[in-house]
Amino acid sequence: MTTTTNQNVEFVRTGYGKNMVKVLHICREGTHHHITELIADVELTLKTRKDYLTGDNSDIIPTDTIKNTVHALAKLKGIRDIESFALDICEHFLTAFKHVTRVRVKIDEVPWKRLEKNGVEHTHAFINFPVAWHFCEVEQHLNMSPVVHSGLREMKVLKTTQSGFEGFLQDRFTTLTATKDRFFCTSVYAKWRYNTVNVAFDAAWKTVRDTIIEKFAGPYDHGVYSPSVQKTLYDTQLLVLDRIPEVEEIEIIMPNQHYFLIDMTKMGLSNKDEVYLPLDNPSGSISGTVGRKPRAKL
Amino acid sequence: MTTTTNQNVEFVRTGYGKNMVKVLHICREGTHHHITELIADVELTLKTRKDYLTGDNSDIIPTDTIKNTVHALAKLKGIRDIESFALDICEHFLTAFKHVTRVRVKIDEVPWKRLEKNGVEHTHAFINFPVAWHFCEVEQHLNMSPVVHSGLREMKVLKTTQSGFEGFLQDRFTTLTATKDRFFCTSVYAKWRYNTVNVAFDAAWKTVRDTIIEKFAGPYDHGVYSPSVQKTLYDTQLLVLDRIPEVEEIEIIMPNQHYFLIDMTKMGLSNKDEVYLPLDNPSGSISGTVGRKPRAKL
Amino acid sequence: MTTTTNQNVEFVRTGYGKNMVKVLHICREGTHHHITELIADVELTLKTRKDYLTGDNSDIIPTDTIKNTVHALAKLKGIRDIESFALDICEHFLTAFKHVTRVRVKIDEVPWKRLEKNGVEHTHAFINFPVAWHFCEVEQHLNMSPVVHSGLREMKVLKTTQSGFEGFLQDRFTTLTATKDRFFCTSVYAKWRYNTVNVAFDAAWKTVRDTIIEKFAGPYDHGVYSPSVQKTLYDTQLLVLDRIPEVEEIEIIMPNQHYFLIDMTKMGLSNKDEVYLPLDNPSGSISGTVGRKPRAKL
Amino acid sequence: MTTTTNQNVEFVRTGYGKNMVKVLHICREGTHHHITELIADVELTLKTRKDYLTGDNSDIIPTDTIKNTVHALAKLKGIRDIESFALDICEHFLTAFKHVTRVRVKIDEVPWKRLEKNGVEHTHAFINFPVAWHFCEVEQHLNMSPVVHSGLREMKVLKTTQSGFEGFLQDRFTTLTATKDRFFCTSVYAKWRYNTVNVAFDAAWKTVRDTIIEKFAGPYDHGVYSPSVQKTLYDTQLLVLDRIPEVEEIEIIMPNQHYFLIDMTKMGLSNKDEVYLPLDNPSGSISGTVGRKPRAKL
Repeated sequence: MTTTTNQNVEFVRTGYGKNMVKVLHICREGTHHHITELIADVELTLKTRKDYLTGDNSDIIPTDTIKNTVHALAKLKGIRDIESFALDICEHFLTAFKHVTRVRVKIDEVPWKRLEKNGVEHTHAFINFPVAWHFCEVEQHLNMSPVVHSGLREMKVLKTTQSGFEGFLQDRFTTLTATKDRFFCTSVYAKWRYNTVNVAFDAAWKTVRDTIIEKFAGPYDHGVYSPSVQKTLYDTQLLVLDRIPEVEEIEIIMPNQHYFLIDMTKMGLSNKDEVYLPLDNPSGSISGTVGRKPRAKL
Repeated sequence: MTTTTNQNVEFVRTGYGKNMVKVLHICREGTHHHITELIADVELTLKTRKDYLTGDNSDIIPTDTIKNTVHALAKLKGIRDIESFALDICEHFLTAFKHVTRVRVKIDEVPWKRLEKNGVEHTHAFINFPVAWHFCEVEQHLNMSPVVHSGLREMKVLKTTQSGFEGFLQDRFTTLTATKDRFFCTSVYAKWRYNTVNVAFDAAWKTVRDTIIEKFAGPYDHGVYSPSVQKTLYDTQLLVLDRIPEVEEIEIIMPNQHYFLIDMTKMGLSNKDEVYLPLDNPSGSISGTVGRKPRAKL
Repeated sequence: MTTTTNQNVEFVRTGYGKNMVKVLHICREGTHHHITELIADVELTLKTRKDYLTGDNSDIIPTDTIKNTVHALAKLKGIRDIESFALDICEHFLTAFKHVTRVRVKIDEVPWKRLEKNGVEHTHAFINFPVAWHFCEVEQHLNMSPVVHSGLREMKVLKTTQSGFEGFLQDRFTTLTATKDRFFCTSVYAKWRYNTVNVAFDAAWKTVRDTIIEKFAGPYDHGVYSPSVQKTLYDTQLLVLDRIPEVEEIEIIMPNQHYFLIDMTKMGLSNKDEVYLPLDNPSGSISGTVGRKPRAKL
Repeated sequence: MTTTTNQNVEFVRTGYGKNMVKVLHICREGTHHHITELIADVELTLKTRKDYLTGDNSDIIPTDTIKNTVHALAKLKGIRDIESFALDICEHFLTAFKHVTRVRVKIDEVPWKRLEKNGVEHTHAFINFPVAWHFCEVEQHLNMSPVVHSGLREMKVLKTTQSGFEGFLQDRFTTLTATKDRFFCTSVYAKWRYNTVNVAFDAAWKTVRDTIIEKFAGPYDHGVYSPSVQKTLYDTQLLVLDRIPEVEEIEIIMPNQHYFLIDMTKMGLSNKDEVYLPLDNPSGSISGTVGRKPRAKL
């Protein structure tokens, strides 16, 4: 009888932790209140796998404790920005325990924005502003430097012209018509890696956001022509790398969310670029990751 | 044998139509483009029920035709605002057919916002701005005036102070502690009925939105105290009715989305109004509908 | 100065309560465990509106207490079925307080199903089985009988033939082709009102569910022809009213979720009823409510 | 002026394609109909990046053509199971074009189940049965063998006893109490890699599903004790590897979805393991990937 046992198999990866740990941290400067609300996923990898192998739990830091720790660190360290807080969490687990070999922290920041009117800021009232999400992912191995990624997602932009798609390959399944003028609608996802932890993270995130909008929209009076999503995506990456020296590598995904001109000829109407059908699916998906060349290669 | 047949039963209500009809309408003023994207549900009630009773489809305007009609009307009439477009749809079905006795149109407007920088507007680029949704519901019966509701939903606001809840009833299941100072977070839903169709609908919607924010937040330097969600909700309604004479009645629902101070005493920490747990559920739900008194009563 | 005040307005409706109150109740018969998990929305209307008008909270049963009460009643009364539990909640608030004039309880039951293998039931393990959701809505006014609705939703069924749509009205916007053979896919919503509280609620729900499937699918060897969604919907209602005397009235909504044959002629292929495109939107929406005729009319 | 240009950067990864391509394929054996509905994401990587670099689209197979190809292949090849169909898609793009260097296809199968009653199958009616989702992911590089992963997700199971958690590490942030008897609720995610393409994929998927249930639930009369999620997860992996020789490696993620006993002492009630609060978040998350040892090591 040949059964699969511990002898025949090996661990490729293990990890455990707590997902969806929510925290709101408030910093009260007199009557002027600052808030950060976040949702964190924390994952640890331990030196041994005896918990998996034999049910010996003695090395397990309970996921309940992991949750408590996130809460406690918010109290003890405060939250300057989500990246710094994720770094704090990594450091805690790697220094407080000898048998934690890896920590990975993913954080989403809830997009609260202080109310503001004619340049006057409200002291304590905020509005949810989900125009773009800010997230980060920090991973650190024992005795190694942390690797910090930041990201932006669900920022949806649309332009009604200054986009085309021509000169593409044709085969027997191609039915698409080339065009010099189409809608371009996308929900941008971007994730970038820093080459240092000494970053003004919130400022850098805003620079990436503004750069994406800038390359998408072009000058406000006449826009900029996009010959393909690929080209716009790459141009954006170049400009981000140019503007933020601390960004080492950046991935962007730009789905192409289609709007089709509705054919009304059967109804006896001539729809001249007036009425479009927004399509939920399918959507194109264009992605690319670009990084700085290693110095040695230059 | 006593079976239930047509003789024993009666129709209480019937209706059919097309849901989730999507349209993007673009108006091109030279290179300056205006867009409206919407999602419409259209429901008709017909004079007879022979389709239900005998499978005789001769009175049915197919739901596919209803979809086509929405598209065609966008082309023929344009879309000034979602309320006017819903009125156009109602009018079409009640005048083009003799056997349609009722039309109800619900429309959600997709929250596109023109890109703008230092007061300069982009000619053709837009960003999705889901800070609050604008919807409407227009219903019209044959030979009757249309009834127009507009609404706002998913506008989430939070204040960190200037809210309390005291003096409530206590029974054996009460464990809540009275407080003079708590978080107040809510996702506002408001729906109001107009007493006329001659309304600048988009301007009125913005006035309601701003009024809700104003009564929630109070003056920007010190806020306004809310003794209960009920009071804040009602005060908001009064001010809306005061500011917009065309609003006859307004319903507001303000869920109370809780943030609890995390007790850290077991961890040896003193959490003094710093770290809170955002709660997904349950949530309080406070609602009220207030209308103008009929003149006769005055 | 004419401002809107309490004198010019009146309340149309008020209500408040707790939404998304979650409970899992377990009944342990030795090692054989029974569970019911539910999500309840409880809403109360109070005799006065002084909370809205003046911020006087003295009549308010806090929503936190409402949540506690749901938990406590689960402990004190148990949960036979969600309808009985909703009736218990109504009764509690109307008898424990003199100033509650109306209670409405909506409950969704989480669809746990006991594991079973070859007819053997597991004593304590369950699997989530969201093939159809069971919900109820019970409303009771002070000194009145409760009104009990039960419902089923999100039961999605599809048949590949035995459905057609012909003989419909044609106008200038009609482009649909009549057909004797199409797909019929729908996600059924049904909600019915009982004429008594003496009902085996779970058994009745299953009878409704089975009746919907039966009228949709027909005999298993050859099916049953549906000339329209309307006819199938009405036939189902008649059979439910015939089988369950305690059902007084039933509403059914059957969206028509479209599958379109993909035209492959441009690709040089002949797609003979083989490959279809499932459409997310728009969808048809057919609804109808049918009730028993009052005896007097017979 | 030092700007970032093509000279300073390099591509780390590129890929593009079409997401959410929907298809329903029907196979008609006389009046007995078989259906497969699926949602596919197809991504290609091309040999050159000139589309990104210069806007030269001449190598791009449009994402619209990719969609058409999925439809056409469903017509030409049929759909035996989602894994085989994904393999067909990979093969098509790698053989029809010389400049495609990599294809990745992810497919979700819509969980339709034929109606069945007392062992009799319906010829053409189906019900949506989302008790567990079946997905796959096939990736193939030019001149390489395809790598086939299959997966199961969103299968939610709960047991009310035969689970404990004791002997874990304690630190200053630990507040959890050890227990020999708790609820264990999880929504299982499993993804495994095959070492061959000669697999009865649907049968293998069912074996994995049944094995997960078996190790979770244990014997139906008394269950099996789980000392930790880790142990149950690993035991399941061992048994899958034992039962299916074609599985080379398997990852399982088992979130720990918490149910807390509600403390009713403040309400004067003694809640003895009767009423629990289901918690949406946070949740524990336990994961592990286990593979067969390379032969050389044995």
